[in-house]
Amino acid sequence: MSKIAESTIRRLSLYLRLLEEFEIAGEDTVSSEALAAKSGATSAQVRKDLSLFGSFGKRGLGYPVRDLSARIRQILGLQRHHSVILVGAGLLGTALVRNRGFTERGFDVVGAYDSSPTRIGRRVNGLVVKSDDDIDTDLASTPVDIAIITTPGEVAQGIVDRLVKLGVRAILNFTATKLVVPDSVAVKDVNMAIELEALSFAIGHQT
Amino acid sequence: MSKIAESTIRRLSLYLRLLEEFEIAGEDTVSSEALAAKSGATSAQVRKDLSLFGSFGKRGLGYPVRDLSARIRQILGLQRHHSVILVGAGLLGTALVRNRGFTERGFDVVGAYDSSPTRIGRRVNGLVVKSDDDIDTDLASTPVDIAIITTPGEVAQGIVDRLVKLGVRAILNFTATKLVVPDSVAVKDVNMAIELEALSFAIGHQT
Repeated sequence: MSKIAESTIRRLSLYLRLLEEFEIAGEDTVSSEALAAKSGATSAQVRKDLSLFGSFGKRGLGYPVRDLSARIRQILGLQRHHSVILVGAGLLGTALVRNRGFTERGFDVVGAYDSSPTRIGRRVNGLVVKSDDDIDTDLASTPVDIAIITTPGEVAQGIVDRLVKLGVRAILNFTATKLVVPDSVAVKDVNMAIELEALSFAIGHQT
Repeated sequence: MSKIAESTIRRLSLYLRLLEEFEIAGEDTVSSEALAAKSGATSAQVRKDLSLFGSFGKRGLGYPVRDLSARIRQILGLQRHHSVILVGAGLLGTALVRNRGFTERGFDVVGAYDSSPTRIGRRVNGLVVKSDDDIDTDLASTPVDIAIITTPGEVAQGIVDRLVKLGVRAILNFTATKLVVPDSVAVKDVNMAIELEALSFAIGHQT
């Protein structure tokens, strides 16, 4: 089960969003075709993805919306809450943790840290920004699962090394730095510059 | 050349960043091993990636830093400037366009739009936020290459349909909506919720 391809995981996240929309719309069942149409996958792909987790759909009846979304939440580990800290409380970091979708999905931002005296003490989404120096003490007493890194790139690796020692198991990296972590720690990079460069490449090769 | 895998393009972006660091450090040449060590690729992968674009490195001498970064910039289309508009001037959109890295890379933000009267008229990074309604007139007279979408998800597709008709060729989509565009338009999705869910999955499957 841990060998599920990353692309599959991404599609599951997408299906979950669609299922929640169907649920809000009052639909009890949904066809693989309907999920496919809105997710950009083929219906065969949808059926294949969902068959990974046991038999759900009944031919001609479609998938039960509520059961399927509960199952996907469980697969993604969203039935439990995750504690999250933000390191780097600048404009981007602040914008990110103010995102309401966060808490709704069970990602609880429990701390925000920065090295800049002008930011330390500021209030962000109900949290007071603390000094980077407090990370070690705070996490030693209250471990967290996930850290969002929006620091300048050049300090990111040093901070991540500390976080890994403190038991952080997953990193969402918004810096352009390629982080080095043990295999036991998961890292996802979100890098707008790299996305823009990929778009620039695509524009140059459009026919 | 247009068939280069997306993963290769991403590595090229990463190599470019590293080459720029080597340039700042005053290095004339760099080995595939040095690029590999900092990019998380193998040196064989680095050599393979760079061989796609002609022969650069000389065995034992390494790659010429300046020439190689110029060539990668050219491949990625970064030798020319791209005009960019922001649609959705909330916290996230505002944080994004204030990113200085943007202009340095030749992505010129030429307009910011929103539908909310409380945001229209505000100044963001030297630009006055205009009404969404102005997009059609503005882009009809001055076409842009790239649009960054940070609107609420439910209005994103409608806006993108208009942008595509107005000649926008690439979309950086920060909403959770799966956008439908013609094949001639490139879309990159940046979705923090999906990244967090992938991390949640990884945490649940760590051994």
